[in-house]
Amino acid sequence: MVAMDAMIQAYEQRLQAFALAPTPYRHGIAWIDGAYTPIEQARIPLLDQGFLHSDLTYDVPAVWNGRYFRLDDHLDRLEASCRTLRMRLPVERAALREQLIDMVAVSGMRDAFVEIIVTRGLSFVRGADPDTMQNALYLFAVPYVWAMPPEIQRVGGTAIVTRTVRRVPPGAIDPKVKNLQWGDFIRGLFEARDRGAALPILPDGDGNLTEGGGYNLFIVKDGVLYTPERGVLEGITRRTVLDIAAARSLSVRIEHVPVDLAYKADEIFLCTTAGGIMPIAMLDAKPVGDGQVGPITRAIWESYWALHDDPAYSFAVPYAGAD
Amino acid sequence: MVAMDAMIQAYEQRLQAFALAPTPYRHGIAWIDGAYTPIEQARIPLLDQGFLHSDLTYDVPAVWNGRYFRLDDHLDRLEASCRTLRMRLPVERAALREQLIDMVAVSGMRDAFVEIIVTRGLSFVRGADPDTMQNALYLFAVPYVWAMPPEIQRVGGTAIVTRTVRRVPPGAIDPKVKNLQWGDFIRGLFEARDRGAALPILPDGDGNLTEGGGYNLFIVKDGVLYTPERGVLEGITRRTVLDIAAARSLSVRIEHVPVDLAYKADEIFLCTTAGGIMPIAMLDAKPVGDGQVGPITRAIWESYWALHDDPAYSFAVPYAGAD
Repeated sequence: MVAMDAMIQAYEQRLQAFALAPTPYRHGIAWIDGAYTPIEQARIPLLDQGFLHSDLTYDVPAVWNGRYFRLDDHLDRLEASCRTLRMRLPVERAALREQLIDMVAVSGMRDAFVEIIVTRGLSFVRGADPDTMQNALYLFAVPYVWAMPPEIQRVGGTAIVTRTVRRVPPGAIDPKVKNLQWGDFIRGLFEARDRGAALPILPDGDGNLTEGGGYNLFIVKDGVLYTPERGVLEGITRRTVLDIAAARSLSVRIEHVPVDLAYKADEIFLCTTAGGIMPIAMLDAKPVGDGQVGPITRAIWESYWALHDDPAYSFAVPYAGAD
Repeated sequence: MVAMDAMIQAYEQRLQAFALAPTPYRHGIAWIDGAYTPIEQARIPLLDQGFLHSDLTYDVPAVWNGRYFRLDDHLDRLEASCRTLRMRLPVERAALREQLIDMVAVSGMRDAFVEIIVTRGLSFVRGADPDTMQNALYLFAVPYVWAMPPEIQRVGGTAIVTRTVRRVPPGAIDPKVKNLQWGDFIRGLFEARDRGAALPILPDGDGNLTEGGGYNLFIVKDGVLYTPERGVLEGITRRTVLDIAAARSLSVRIEHVPVDLAYKADEIFLCTTAGGIMPIAMLDAKPVGDGQVGPITRAIWESYWALHDDPAYSFAVPYAGAD
């Protein structure tokens, strides 16, 4: 993959430059209580309900090559999640947006995984009025995270369909409201590890596939892209794949995806802000299609990264002293 | 309820005495990184996976009238939860037990809700070996918590069977491993609030009842006690109720409890360490039985609190300067 080689090479050069830059934010930066701190020193109140009952929502925009990607789409989703949970952003959206840009600029990171966490705050909801609660906001950015390392993306990674754990159903905890209640995903990650694979895909308990920990699923069969409709996060990377598919006139079906389709797939890929388009070459220890990264996955991969330079999808972070 | 009146009066006198005692731990005490701190100043690392993916387990013994209740049973369950999650107590169990006793003694609290949280620690499980991870431990104690206030327990509280949310199924997140992924419970608490009630009881999505946020369910019908077998925490208070029922030769059935049984109940009560035996007088805005606290609930309530003085179930905290 020529495009991938060039992209990864440029990324590694940026990493090397950052490793030489003088900064207290080598491992990341956090914004808590109105101040920046090196990520490894950042602390939150023990009594925060985001810890004591995982009562929170979050979102994770990324910065790639010095540019925020789809930041406003992430903020739209975050606001929708807050509304569903009866929470409010503790600051104005415009101020939050500026803070996120400033934080990355201050850190100097050119490639970053940025996390925005809104918690219920210090008060438990039992017996309390959500409208009068002071919700809390925590921001941080760390060097770009790869759910599948680039060197694995070149050849395709390994996945399983879990058989010891199912996805939490939307009637219990709504996956469209991005949350950190990862009990099912963590069981899935352990099952994958036990079975010699990297990434779990969880079924819904009714014979359909859903998603994995932080990533959506696409299956390619006879030139058509399938992705689950229900019981999954409406991922921003998923949406970007849909945009690319539309631009390339690929057929897409957003519907219930039966478990069995994974075993008949020509190609499978997972997608997430933390790693982009992740080709799966082996499912349950057997090759997907011919066991190579397939042509549709490859084309989407290349378009996905190309969009990171597109002003319709991204904008430059104003680093101090930047050209 | 004469026994309740006397018990609550004595409790309120202890609260008044504690309010006059000179202590930095008026609102509670935390033990973090080997040191005590007033609860309101306690902080944990932002990067703790207990926050970032709710990757943790916990347990909540209580201290009542200066005595720990069933502490070793709570520690047994905590250890079992850790094993299921592939975590280990970061300290020896005996040392943890001593720390828990010391913490309450230092705080001076005679009636406390004690929380032990074991998290994955600072490393995310993806791609990592759980056996080499350093798990983290946080302890705190706050004044005794009432999921149903004592004055409501006198007359019976209000509950609903939720219709907008179901309990997370055990195939997704196992409720026997006590966890803080309360997304479904929090939806239930809001639904209860919206419908003018205090406490939600969640169905399992298959026509059976489960539990609510931090409490188990008992239904009394024709002299028989019913409590759900599946999809619930095996609560220590629930187990104490089973002990009491056995001692009183009451019939108990631990089985699937159909939703419909709640509407035919003679008595309903919920039970938890944070409040004990909580009679429900109104379900879905209609009286349970005759709308009073029923005789079986009352008898169990009295036995439950009497056991808190029983050396087979409790032991005294060695407060400094105590008699």
